[in-house]
Amino acid sequence: MALHGKNFIAGQHSADGNQNFNAINPAIGKTIDPLFMEATDQEVDTALSQADAAYDQITDLTPAQRADFLDAIAIQIEALGDDLIDRASAETALPAARLTGERGRTMNQLNQFAQLVREGSWVEARIDHAIPDRQPLPKVDVRRMLVPIGPVVVFGASNFPLAFSVAGGDTASALAAGCPVIIKAHPAHPGTCELIAMAIERAIERTKVPPAIFSMVHGQGPEVGMAMVKHPLTKAIGFTGSLAAGRAIYNAAAARPEPIPVYAEMGSANPIFVLPSAVTDRGKQIAEALYQSVTLGVGQFCTNPGLVLGLRDKPFDQFIDLCSQHFASAATGTMLHPGIGRNYQSRMNKIKDTSGVDLRAQSLEKQSPTTTCGPAGLFVSDATTFLSNSDLSEEIFGPSTIAIACNDIEQLYESAHHLPGQLTITIHGTEQDLEEFDSLIAILQRKAGRLVFNGFPTGVEVCPSMHHGGPYPATTDARTTSVGTAAIQRFSRPVCYQQFPQSALPVQLRDHNEMEIMRLVDGKWTK
Amino acid sequence: MALHGKNFIAGQHSADGNQNFNAINPAIGKTIDPLFMEATDQEVDTALSQADAAYDQITDLTPAQRADFLDAIAIQIEALGDDLIDRASAETALPAARLTGERGRTMNQLNQFAQLVREGSWVEARIDHAIPDRQPLPKVDVRRMLVPIGPVVVFGASNFPLAFSVAGGDTASALAAGCPVIIKAHPAHPGTCELIAMAIERAIERTKVPPAIFSMVHGQGPEVGMAMVKHPLTKAIGFTGSLAAGRAIYNAAAARPEPIPVYAEMGSANPIFVLPSAVTDRGKQIAEALYQSVTLGVGQFCTNPGLVLGLRDKPFDQFIDLCSQHFASAATGTMLHPGIGRNYQSRMNKIKDTSGVDLRAQSLEKQSPTTTCGPAGLFVSDATTFLSNSDLSEEIFGPSTIAIACNDIEQLYESAHHLPGQLTITIHGTEQDLEEFDSLIAILQRKAGRLVFNGFPTGVEVCPSMHHGGPYPATTDARTTSVGTAAIQRFSRPVCYQQFPQSALPVQLRDHNEMEIMRLVDGKWTK
Repeated sequence: MALHGKNFIAGQHSADGNQNFNAINPAIGKTIDPLFMEATDQEVDTALSQADAAYDQITDLTPAQRADFLDAIAIQIEALGDDLIDRASAETALPAARLTGERGRTMNQLNQFAQLVREGSWVEARIDHAIPDRQPLPKVDVRRMLVPIGPVVVFGASNFPLAFSVAGGDTASALAAGCPVIIKAHPAHPGTCELIAMAIERAIERTKVPPAIFSMVHGQGPEVGMAMVKHPLTKAIGFTGSLAAGRAIYNAAAARPEPIPVYAEMGSANPIFVLPSAVTDRGKQIAEALYQSVTLGVGQFCTNPGLVLGLRDKPFDQFIDLCSQHFASAATGTMLHPGIGRNYQSRMNKIKDTSGVDLRAQSLEKQSPTTTCGPAGLFVSDATTFLSNSDLSEEIFGPSTIAIACNDIEQLYESAHHLPGQLTITIHGTEQDLEEFDSLIAILQRKAGRLVFNGFPTGVEVCPSMHHGGPYPATTDARTTSVGTAAIQRFSRPVCYQQFPQSALPVQLRDHNEMEIMRLVDGKWTK
Repeated sequence: MALHGKNFIAGQHSADGNQNFNAINPAIGKTIDPLFMEATDQEVDTALSQADAAYDQITDLTPAQRADFLDAIAIQIEALGDDLIDRASAETALPAARLTGERGRTMNQLNQFAQLVREGSWVEARIDHAIPDRQPLPKVDVRRMLVPIGPVVVFGASNFPLAFSVAGGDTASALAAGCPVIIKAHPAHPGTCELIAMAIERAIERTKVPPAIFSMVHGQGPEVGMAMVKHPLTKAIGFTGSLAAGRAIYNAAAARPEPIPVYAEMGSANPIFVLPSAVTDRGKQIAEALYQSVTLGVGQFCTNPGLVLGLRDKPFDQFIDLCSQHFASAATGTMLHPGIGRNYQSRMNKIKDTSGVDLRAQSLEKQSPTTTCGPAGLFVSDATTFLSNSDLSEEIFGPSTIAIACNDIEQLYESAHHLPGQLTITIHGTEQDLEEFDSLIAILQRKAGRLVFNGFPTGVEVCPSMHHGGPYPATTDARTTSVGTAAIQRFSRPVCYQQFPQSALPVQLRDHNEMEIMRLVDGKWTK
């Protein structure tokens, strides 16, 4: 499938700028054709202005039309066939099997949001009928539901070129909420982005939704993205990536004349607590599964466990030994792009140079190109060192983890208190452990968005109960999730209608509950 | 009842500082005893640290215990009797009847949140059961619910010394969510604040909740409040007041190392569209009700209508004449404090001096002290002037409104598009008007949190469907409300529990639905 390298501006392919760039194959360090054209400020403005101009048409789409559009995107993504997998693999070094699985997840997300929109209860409809003869004042008729927040800018993530990129979770949830979406394509996989944008274009044609519902622009540096963040018509931002980039976007959005919400998911260390009885009972299994979780996808997951905490005793020492055997025999993977490779290597060097931290095991195999080399690593340290070096609790984006031995329960609790906000925290324990460490869950609940028991945080289930978010610096908005159907809430706001005639009310708020959605009517939940 | 003027720090009365101030009676311009002691940074830190230290105890309170505490606060407020009304009246110049009504509303809010917490469904519990044999990967058991966000700082509002002050809507919703609350008392009614703080203290004693659940500090300038905003243990902020103060708090919170949500409700112009048929049919009634709404409480409401828009025709001219008769015969009220009085008078002078704006009617009666004088005023202008002077669309905090005559439907639509974010927008119209102005609702829905039909925005019903919020600059977070039971969502965040044993799950997420709350279980709503 031939790629054109242009920007997608509300149904037009546009290449007005004079800056361009290539994708790079990280496995061989060579550029890949074609050239991609960076968007100009004018192209960004056109995308937002067209989205705004078509806003009424877009929000007037019925729930069924929105759902059909989402399902059609999934169909068109599947129709891209091996071209998509091949291009994504060339741009990211991710294996075909992983990308095929991720494509399935991406389609599943689109279908789940389609189903959510068709079912319709997500609008949180509430109705309070009038009581004209209430004393001392009559009660007016008041009804409320969620409406789309406005044009949404989505930054594609590098580590999920399908499931958190052009048609990923942020896009699916924003479209489901009824918003037009303007994508900042990730410059590490621009060809994959273009293929997905083509699929969305075809879905727009097939389901006859307004073309301005979707735009996608290219840009290698931060300039294009910042123009999108600062554009007055942008009403919300979805982002998955690094803390530095996420915070820069958050700061720019907060400094706008009209501040807007930023949903930045910036990863975390995802600590694993391995408690004494669990280590004694299942140390071998936990060690193997931990190694698998840390090295999965060359450790390039937001939920990758970068910390392991336990009580210093003989079973824990044996557990560390078992872990180190796994890490020493690990293959060296290829990372997504040279920038990630360099950051990972410099982070590893910094950890290694920290007094009190020991690099216990590392995959030894060498690789070329070295800039995208991702060797697995197991560091070992103690709680005193951990508590006095706060950078040890930061995310490691790559296949390494730091094991921390605590002298006693108090030091383990202190280490738990010391943690910054996390997407996930995991406990491996027995019932006996939970009794003995009875304050641990309460401490950890204040720190994380998801608590995992006797499992691993990698592999995030896409379902209504999932919460993929957590206190800062894991995200900029701990009240929201970027995985699972609750993600739709990010792109909506309530509107309340007082004393409106039935005919002027949205269908979801009329007395006759035509869509049969769950509503809170005069304080009672009812369909 | 003797007042001590001290800060309430987690169960202790504290006066470590050396700055103090008096309340002023705005009706006579005289200070009132006692002196109130400004809190020191150390006292602020103690309040937050104690709230944090008692956090587990506070979040461990059962829903019934939290509800009993909220109800007990209402009982203790009522028990203050006339002392409360007398002090509040002396500090605000609001009449006893209004304050008695506001006390009832304050108690009603506390009772509504108590009921919400007792019922329990507000935690939005979701359960997805495991499917161990799912292909290609097993599905894990995932459950999610809302938990308290952490210590909440609440800034009391000047214009609702009871319902949006120490035990007002922000406090009630934050306590209901399970958060400790640290209040910045409003310096214009510190004695009222102290009386309410005493009532809360008694409720704490009676219901045996941890004393650190509540603190209240005094401060006349912005310093004490800013210390609270910047304190690392503060996790969310509730504020009702001016755009300048709200934005300053928002900016400071966004610049923290850990940014936190700010729920600032900053008022708006609350435009009223009076459409031609409605003016012809009911011009006289609308004029009288508009005048009542604008001058209610000396115009000191966030929902006070500061703009009236219509089509320039004979019935509209007659309507304006009727309005001006009302405004010309209005009494001059006393405003809440000299700062508000001065701001209102300078705003009126600025509007009067705008070329193209005519001060059509004003209450003529003079008053002393002049600094708190709040004369009613009716300005008349045209859409061309309105569209070229954006400060005309800003809030007027006081009993004045600007009537804007539009030449045609297009100019009325353009004026609607021109509006910044609003708490409320009102339409007076007939069915014929709605047909003729068929794009108006769609335009206004993008601008406001609440749309009122054939009514007035003042008098905000406290109920589950109420949405008191709107796009910036009406609030800093249009996704949330500060009135009605949905306000509780502001002070919570979801936590997800993966593969947790039943005994370690919160009671709301166990298989046996002991509280009989509404839950989303495997995609179905069920009790």
